[in-house]
Amino acid sequence: MLDTALRNADIVTAADRIRAQIGIRDGRIVTIAEDVGPAREEIDATGLLALPGGIDAHVHLAQHQGGGVVMADGFESGTRSAAAGGTTTVMPFALQQKGQSLREAVSAYHAEAEGKCHVDTSFHLIITDPTPQVLGQELPALVKAGYTSFKVFMTYDDMVLNDAQLLDVFDVARREKALVMVHAEGYDAIRYMARRLEEAGKTAPYYHAASRPQSTEREATHRAISHAELTDVPICIVHVSGREPMEQIQWAKRRGMNVWAETCPQYIALTAEDLKGLNMDFEGAKYVCSPPPRDADSQRAIWEGLRDGTFDIFSSDHCPFRFDDPEGKDVPGARTSFRWVPNGIPIPGIETRLPLLFSEGVSKGRISLERFVALTATNPAKLFGLYPRKGTIAVGADADITLWDLSREVTLSQQILHHDCDYTPYEGLAVKGWPVRTLLRGQTICLDGTITGSPGTGRYLDRATSQAFPAA
Amino acid sequence: MLDTALRNADIVTAADRIRAQIGIRDGRIVTIAEDVGPAREEIDATGLLALPGGIDAHVHLAQHQGGGVVMADGFESGTRSAAAGGTTTVMPFALQQKGQSLREAVSAYHAEAEGKCHVDTSFHLIITDPTPQVLGQELPALVKAGYTSFKVFMTYDDMVLNDAQLLDVFDVARREKALVMVHAEGYDAIRYMARRLEEAGKTAPYYHAASRPQSTEREATHRAISHAELTDVPICIVHVSGREPMEQIQWAKRRGMNVWAETCPQYIALTAEDLKGLNMDFEGAKYVCSPPPRDADSQRAIWEGLRDGTFDIFSSDHCPFRFDDPEGKDVPGARTSFRWVPNGIPIPGIETRLPLLFSEGVSKGRISLERFVALTATNPAKLFGLYPRKGTIAVGADADITLWDLSREVTLSQQILHHDCDYTPYEGLAVKGWPVRTLLRGQTICLDGTITGSPGTGRYLDRATSQAFPAA
Amino acid sequence: MLDTALRNADIVTAADRIRAQIGIRDGRIVTIAEDVGPAREEIDATGLLALPGGIDAHVHLAQHQGGGVVMADGFESGTRSAAAGGTTTVMPFALQQKGQSLREAVSAYHAEAEGKCHVDTSFHLIITDPTPQVLGQELPALVKAGYTSFKVFMTYDDMVLNDAQLLDVFDVARREKALVMVHAEGYDAIRYMARRLEEAGKTAPYYHAASRPQSTEREATHRAISHAELTDVPICIVHVSGREPMEQIQWAKRRGMNVWAETCPQYIALTAEDLKGLNMDFEGAKYVCSPPPRDADSQRAIWEGLRDGTFDIFSSDHCPFRFDDPEGKDVPGARTSFRWVPNGIPIPGIETRLPLLFSEGVSKGRISLERFVALTATNPAKLFGLYPRKGTIAVGADADITLWDLSREVTLSQQILHHDCDYTPYEGLAVKGWPVRTLLRGQTICLDGTITGSPGTGRYLDRATSQAFPAA
Amino acid sequence: MLDTALRNADIVTAADRIRAQIGIRDGRIVTIAEDVGPAREEIDATGLLALPGGIDAHVHLAQHQGGGVVMADGFESGTRSAAAGGTTTVMPFALQQKGQSLREAVSAYHAEAEGKCHVDTSFHLIITDPTPQVLGQELPALVKAGYTSFKVFMTYDDMVLNDAQLLDVFDVARREKALVMVHAEGYDAIRYMARRLEEAGKTAPYYHAASRPQSTEREATHRAISHAELTDVPICIVHVSGREPMEQIQWAKRRGMNVWAETCPQYIALTAEDLKGLNMDFEGAKYVCSPPPRDADSQRAIWEGLRDGTFDIFSSDHCPFRFDDPEGKDVPGARTSFRWVPNGIPIPGIETRLPLLFSEGVSKGRISLERFVALTATNPAKLFGLYPRKGTIAVGADADITLWDLSREVTLSQQILHHDCDYTPYEGLAVKGWPVRTLLRGQTICLDGTITGSPGTGRYLDRATSQAFPAA
Repeated sequence: MLDTALRNADIVTAADRIRAQIGIRDGRIVTIAEDVGPAREEIDATGLLALPGGIDAHVHLAQHQGGGVVMADGFESGTRSAAAGGTTTVMPFALQQKGQSLREAVSAYHAEAEGKCHVDTSFHLIITDPTPQVLGQELPALVKAGYTSFKVFMTYDDMVLNDAQLLDVFDVARREKALVMVHAEGYDAIRYMARRLEEAGKTAPYYHAASRPQSTEREATHRAISHAELTDVPICIVHVSGREPMEQIQWAKRRGMNVWAETCPQYIALTAEDLKGLNMDFEGAKYVCSPPPRDADSQRAIWEGLRDGTFDIFSSDHCPFRFDDPEGKDVPGARTSFRWVPNGIPIPGIETRLPLLFSEGVSKGRISLERFVALTATNPAKLFGLYPRKGTIAVGADADITLWDLSREVTLSQQILHHDCDYTPYEGLAVKGWPVRTLLRGQTICLDGTITGSPGTGRYLDRATSQAFPAA
Repeated sequence: MLDTALRNADIVTAADRIRAQIGIRDGRIVTIAEDVGPAREEIDATGLLALPGGIDAHVHLAQHQGGGVVMADGFESGTRSAAAGGTTTVMPFALQQKGQSLREAVSAYHAEAEGKCHVDTSFHLIITDPTPQVLGQELPALVKAGYTSFKVFMTYDDMVLNDAQLLDVFDVARREKALVMVHAEGYDAIRYMARRLEEAGKTAPYYHAASRPQSTEREATHRAISHAELTDVPICIVHVSGREPMEQIQWAKRRGMNVWAETCPQYIALTAEDLKGLNMDFEGAKYVCSPPPRDADSQRAIWEGLRDGTFDIFSSDHCPFRFDDPEGKDVPGARTSFRWVPNGIPIPGIETRLPLLFSEGVSKGRISLERFVALTATNPAKLFGLYPRKGTIAVGADADITLWDLSREVTLSQQILHHDCDYTPYEGLAVKGWPVRTLLRGQTICLDGTITGSPGTGRYLDRATSQAFPAA
Repeated sequence: MLDTALRNADIVTAADRIRAQIGIRDGRIVTIAEDVGPAREEIDATGLLALPGGIDAHVHLAQHQGGGVVMADGFESGTRSAAAGGTTTVMPFALQQKGQSLREAVSAYHAEAEGKCHVDTSFHLIITDPTPQVLGQELPALVKAGYTSFKVFMTYDDMVLNDAQLLDVFDVARREKALVMVHAEGYDAIRYMARRLEEAGKTAPYYHAASRPQSTEREATHRAISHAELTDVPICIVHVSGREPMEQIQWAKRRGMNVWAETCPQYIALTAEDLKGLNMDFEGAKYVCSPPPRDADSQRAIWEGLRDGTFDIFSSDHCPFRFDDPEGKDVPGARTSFRWVPNGIPIPGIETRLPLLFSEGVSKGRISLERFVALTATNPAKLFGLYPRKGTIAVGADADITLWDLSREVTLSQQILHHDCDYTPYEGLAVKGWPVRTLLRGQTICLDGTITGSPGTGRYLDRATSQAFPAA
Repeated sequence: MLDTALRNADIVTAADRIRAQIGIRDGRIVTIAEDVGPAREEIDATGLLALPGGIDAHVHLAQHQGGGVVMADGFESGTRSAAAGGTTTVMPFALQQKGQSLREAVSAYHAEAEGKCHVDTSFHLIITDPTPQVLGQELPALVKAGYTSFKVFMTYDDMVLNDAQLLDVFDVARREKALVMVHAEGYDAIRYMARRLEEAGKTAPYYHAASRPQSTEREATHRAISHAELTDVPICIVHVSGREPMEQIQWAKRRGMNVWAETCPQYIALTAEDLKGLNMDFEGAKYVCSPPPRDADSQRAIWEGLRDGTFDIFSSDHCPFRFDDPEGKDVPGARTSFRWVPNGIPIPGIETRLPLLFSEGVSKGRISLERFVALTATNPAKLFGLYPRKGTIAVGADADITLWDLSREVTLSQQILHHDCDYTPYEGLAVKGWPVRTLLRGQTICLDGTITGSPGTGRYLDRATSQAFPAA
C-alpha cells in the first residue's frame, strides 16, 4: 500500500510533460502510472503541475560576517521561507574564517543547523585561507566525506584569494574532483573605483553599482576561466549579472571548456536604477548586492542565456540583511558611504526565486516549463552530486514535489513572505503562477502559504561527485 | 495484468537516467515503478539501457527519381532496416512532381506504403510546384489533416524553388503552422562550379564535393534564415555538413530566431577525401551525397554543435542507391561526370545512424546519453508533432523502446545490414554500443539482429503542430 | 617659373600632416618644399588645410530612368555642385538599358557629358543585360579601354541580375580585372514585403523603409560576397546602410577576402524616422532612397566602420530627383504608394558629402583628418585606377586641392547649394569646417561659394586597373 | 644650395608611392620635387625605393639584468646593427631597479649611451617600483621632460606589478598623458605551470614555451585592457605572439577602446617547434623569448593582424644574450631548467627586423609597401610622439631615409650581421628585398653593409605626447 497517491497532475521534468499519477512510499517515488492504486493519503492535483521540488544551490544562512553584521535568517527561518517558495533543498555555505580550520568551520555550521531545518540541506565550503594544511589534508578529507563543492572569492577584504592561491585551490579541486564555485569580481579594480568615487564625494548606495562596473566582473570571469583552463578543472561562475561576463562564459563554452554558470533573480528583476532609491537616499541600500544589477540590455542578455544554455542553474544567492536595523544594512557607517553597506552577498530572495522565474519566464513565454525545471532542480542536482536522489520526478527519487497553479496571480510583498528579513526587494511585483503545495520526501511541508512541516524535518545530504567531472 | 514487464534496465530519457521497471499494456507504457507487478511477457534487461525508440525524421524510401534511377529500398526493406538499427518511427517524404497535385502525391505514397512497414511512419511533404492551387488549397488542407511539415529545395533542376517561391511557401507555412525543412545549397553557384570543373576535365566523383563547397551551403543557409526572419516562420535547416553553414545557424539562434537544425551520420563519419575512392576511381561514387562530407575541422565543428545545441536533431537522410547497378549510382553517364551520379540525396544509413552516433558520441565521451536521446528521439518527436506519443519513455507514451548493450562491439559491414542496398559507406567501421532489442508499441520487432516483426506491423501517424510554434 | 604657389597651408594626406608650400605647373604639382620660389599666381592659405580634392566615386547624373522620371542634375549642374563642395573628380554611371549595346550606352553618355563638366569625370558602367555579346566582347573591350569598373544590381525590376547572371558577370570581371560594384538588396524579399505592406494599406513614404529591412540588405550582401568568393574576384559593396550588412563585410574582411565597402552621408545624417515626414505625409518622400537610412544604432555602427577600416570609401550616391515636380519624386502614383516614389537611387548630396563628413567626423573627433582624406580621395583613387594622378597631394599628381577652413561654421540649406534639385535633405543642419577654395589641376574653380571655373574645364579620365587586384 | 639630392627613387609613405626627387639641407628634407636642383652630394637611387628610416620602438640595450647576465649589445653595437638593418631611430628602455630612483635610472642610462650611438635614440621608462615618490613626483616630471611613454610588466620576479600597482600607474599615465606599454603575461599562472613541468622533469628549453601557453598571455591581455578601460587610458600591448591574445585586442578595438598593439619578427618567423633544438637539446635556448613563438595557426593570425590593423607597430624586441657564453643564455643553471635561461626579453633581431618583414610581407604579397612603412616608421613615430620629425618622408622631417633594393636576395647569417651577439635565430633564412643604404639626417651611415657613420652621430630625441591621446 502506498503512503501517498498524487493524482491528476501534469508531471514536468527537464525533458517531458505527461499526465500520470505518482505513488509515494517511505518518502520516495515508487511508481508513476496511469493508475497507481490505493494509498493512505490522496492528493488531487487536478489543474496543477507537479514539478520537482526546487533546489536552491546558493544561499547564505546564519553566516557570521565581520563588522557586527548579523544575518536576519538562520536555518529555521531560511528553510521555512524556502519551503513556502516551493524549494525542498537548500545549499548554504560553511565559511572558513581566516586562520580557522576548515573542518572546524564545517562542524560548527552543522551544530548551527541541527534540528532547525524545514527542508533538506547540504553544505558547500568557502575557502578563505588555503594553507598547506587545508589544501593538503582537510579539503581532500572533506571532499571524500561528501562536501564535493566549494566556493572561492576573487574580491572582499576578508575572503579574496590571489591568483597564486586560486591556482593552488583549483589544482586540488582537479585532483579531488570537487566543483569550484567562483565569485568573479576583480578586487583591486573595485577598490580603485571605490576610492575614486569616494574622493569625488559619491557615497550614496547607488555608487555601489558604479564602483563595480561590468568590466570588473568580466575581467575576473575571464581570469577564472583562464585559470580553470590551465589547471584543467571544471568551475561554476556564480551570480553572473550581465552581458559582458556572459560573453566570456559563452566564449568558453563554445571552445568546449568545462565551465558552468549561474544567474539569480536580481539580475532579471532589478537594475542599477533601483539603487537610486528615492532621490539617491538610503532606500537604495535595499538593492545593494554584488555584483550589482545592471541595465535593461543585460536583463535581455540574461534571458537569452537562461534560454540558450549559457546558464545552467538559477539560484537565489539569498542573503538576508535587515534594512531598518543597526545590525543589518544600516550598520554604523553605512549611510556615510556605499562601501559600508553590507553587500558582500545579495539581498533576500530564497522564497521569491521560483515564483519570479516562473512568472517572468514561463508565464511570459520566455522559457519552457522543461527549461524551468532544468534550471531550478535537475541541473543543480546533477552539478552538485545530488542526482538522481534529488532534482527530478522519477521512480527511485525522493518525493520532493511542488505543485504549481499556472493561473494563480499573486502580488509579492513583505507581508506574505516567511523570512525573518524586514523587506523584500520585489515589493509590489505581480506574478502569475504560484507554488501552492510543497512536498518534501512525500510530506506536505507547505500548503497554500501555510507551513505544515516543522523544524527538523529537513535532513542533511551527503553528496557524490559533480557530474561536471566526466565519468571514469 | 500487464502485457509486458521490462525489468532491470537503466531507463534513459532526454533528462534522466534511472533504474526502474516498465509496464506495458495495449502497446503503451502504463506504469514505471520499482516493481510493476506480474505480466504475461517478461523481458529481463539486466545490464542494458532502455532508450526511447529512435525517430529518423529524414529518410527517402521508394521515391521516384528522374533519369530512370530506382531506389534500392522501398517501405518494406527500409523499415526493416530501421527496426534492426533501433529505430521505431521513420519519416519519409511524399514528393510532389512538377505539375502533380500534392494531394495525389500523398495518396499515391500511402498506397505505396500500405501493409509494408515494420515500424511506424509519418510523411513529410516535398513541395516542388507551389502553384496557387497548391498554396491556397491543397497545402492548407493537408496540414490540417496532420501533414504538419514539408520540405523545400534550394537546388536540383527538378525541385529548386526560387526566392519568390520560397517566400510564398514560407508565408503559407506561417499561416498554417507547418514546419518548413530546407535543403540549403545554392543552385546557381553549384551549376557555375560544376561547369568550370567539367570544362577543366575534372569529372571524377571527387569533384562532386568540389562543385559544392561550403560557401554554397553557407550562402543558401543564410538566405533561408533571412527569408524565415522576414516571413516570421520557424524553419529547420536539414543535413548541415560543416562549420560554415553551422556558423550561420549559431548566429541566428543567438539572435533568438526560431531556427532549428539537423545533421547526419555522414558528416561525422566521412570526409571529402572518401570521394577520392581508390586513386580517383568510381569507388568514390559510394560517398556522393549532397551536401558532401567536408573535412576534419568540420567534423570537429559538428561534434561541438551536437553537444551545444546548435543541432536539434540527428537523422540519417537515408537514400539507398545501389552502387553496382545501372539503375543505381552507376546509371548511364555517371562514369563520365560526377554530375550524373545520383546525388540529390545521400547514401544509405537508416540502420547505422544510431550505432554510429552512440559509438562515436556516447561511448567516446563526446555527448551524454541524455543528449543522444534528445537528438535521436525526443527532439524529433517534439519538432514534428509526434510528442508525447513518441520520443520518450514515459507513462502514456507508446512502448517504443530500444535496448542497448553498452559494451557490445560490432564491426559494421554490408553483410550484417538489413537494407536492400548493395553497400554501406561504413564498411569495416568498428562501433561500441549496440541496439540488441527493438520494441514497437510493446512488440519485439527485432532481437539480436533478427527481425521478429512483420511488414504491416508499422502504423501511419497523423501529427499535431510542431512545438517550434509557440503554444497559443 | 611656377604657375601657382600655394603657401602656408597645412597639407594633409592619408598618412601625413605637414606644413609646406606647393608649387604647381601645367596643372600638376611639381614641388612641395619649405619654399617653392616665385610663381605667377600666389595663394596664401594661412590658417587653412590643403586636402586632396574630393573624389566622388558614386554619383548619378543625367541618367535616364523609366517611368518618365527626369534627373534634376545633368553634367553641368552636377559637376558645378561638386566643385562647390570641394570635389574635383566625379564618377557617374553609363547605364546599359536592357537590350542596348553597352558600347552604345557609353558613347551616348560621353555625348551627354561633352563640354559640360566643371570637374574631371570618369565613367563606371552599369550592366543590366549580360548577353553573350556583352560579356564576351563589349565588356572586355571597354575594360581594356579604361572603363575598369562596373556596377550590378541585385534589385529593381529593370536592372536586377539573377544569381546565374551575377556569377557570369563576376567571372568576366576576374578575367578582365574589372572591379565590380554591387548594389546589394534582395529583390524578391523586397517585393514580398512591399506586397504585404500594400495589402495592409501601408503606402506612405515611410513604408519604403519598412519594405526593405536590414535583413534584405544583409542577405544580398552575404550572397554577393559568397559569389565573389566562389569566382575569386574583388567586389565593392556600395552604399552600405547599417549594422547588419556591415557585419557581413567585417566577417569577409577578417577572413582575408578581397571585399571593399562604401557608405554614404545619408547613413550618418538621416534615419528611417525622417521618412515619416510630418505626420506620415509626402514630405517623407524627400528621404526615400535605397537602401533606406536605418536607426541610431546603425549610425553608430557606420561611424565605427568609417574609423576601423570596414569602409574604404565614402561617396554621395547623389541622385537628384526634384521633390515638387511631377517628373521628380512626385511622379504620378507616388502619392498612392511608396513603391512609385523614385527611389532606385538616393537623394541629392554631391555638394554636401564632404562638409557633412568633415563636420560630423573630423570636427567632432570621430575620425582623423588623415582618415577623412583616405575615405574621400586616396582610397577611391586607388580602388578605381586613378592613382597617383588623383587622390593625393604629391609631386607628380594633378593639382586637385581643396582648401578647408577648420573653423568656418555654415548652416546647410537649399539656398546656398549649387545643384538643380529643388531641396536638400539636410536643410538646416549646422556644420563646422568648410571647403573655401577648390583647385582643379591648379585652376581655382570655386572660391568661397562662387563658381570660378566653367563648363568644359573638366576632363574625362581613362583609368588603370583597380589596386584591388594584386600587382602581377 | 642643397646639401644632398636624392634622385630617381620611388618614394613610399604610409599612404603614397610616387616618383620624385628629395632635397636635403641641414639634415632635413626641404623639398620634394620633380627636379630639386643642384646639390653638393648626389645620390642616384635609380631602381630603388626610398622609405622612411625604420623606427624600432622596442629594443633592449646595455640593460643590467639580475643573475650576472650581461647583454651582448650596448649602445654602440646595438645602434650599429640597427643602422645596417635600415633603422634610424631606436627606443631602448631606462629600467628602474626596485628601490632605485627613476630619475637616477634615467640619468645613468643617458651616461651609458653618451657618445656611442650610430642612430638617433629616445628612451622609454620601465617602472618596477611605483612608490608614491615615483608616481607623485618623478614620473610626472619625466613625462613633462619628454619621456612620454613607459613600460610595465605583468610577469617576472623582479619586475612584476600587481593589479593594484597597475591601476595606480595607469591612473598617473592618464593624468600625465603618458603612453603605457604592457608586457602582458600572467605571473602566477606561469609560475604554476613552470612548477608542474619541473616536477614532471620537463626542463629542456622547449618547456619554456609550454610553461607560458597562450592562455596566460591572453588572460593578462584581457586584464590589462580591462584596467585601461577602467582608468580610461590608452595602452599598447607589446610583443603579441598569437591568435588568442590578438582576439582580445581585436575585441577591444571593435568596441572603440584606445588600445594599440605591437608584434615582432619572432612571431612570424619562428614557432615553438624551434625551441626543441636538435632532439630537445640546449640549442633550443637560442629561441627562448617571452612570450614564446607559437604555432603555424598563430603565424597566420599575426599576418592577418599586420594587414588589417590589429597591429599598429612592428618592433624587434631585440634583446641580445650571447648563446655560447656563461654570462649569456648559458648562465649557470640554464642547462638544468628552462627557468634559468635568460628569457625575460627576446632574442637578437634589431638588424633583421626590417628585412624579415619586407621579404615575408611585402615581397610575398602579404602586406603592401605603404603598410610596411606604417608599421615600421609612421605609426611608431605617431604613437611615441616623434612625428612629424620622424616616421615619414615629407618636407620638414628629418632626412632619415632607407633605400631598398626590391630584388636583392640575401641569406641571413651571423657572418653578415653587425651585432655583438654570437648567433642569429634566423641563420640561413633567405630574404628578398634589402636595405642598401641608410641615411640619418641626410648622412649616409650605412652603405651596402658597410658602416659609414660613427658612434656619436646619433642624437637623443625628446618626445611630445603620444597621438594616442586625442588632441585637446
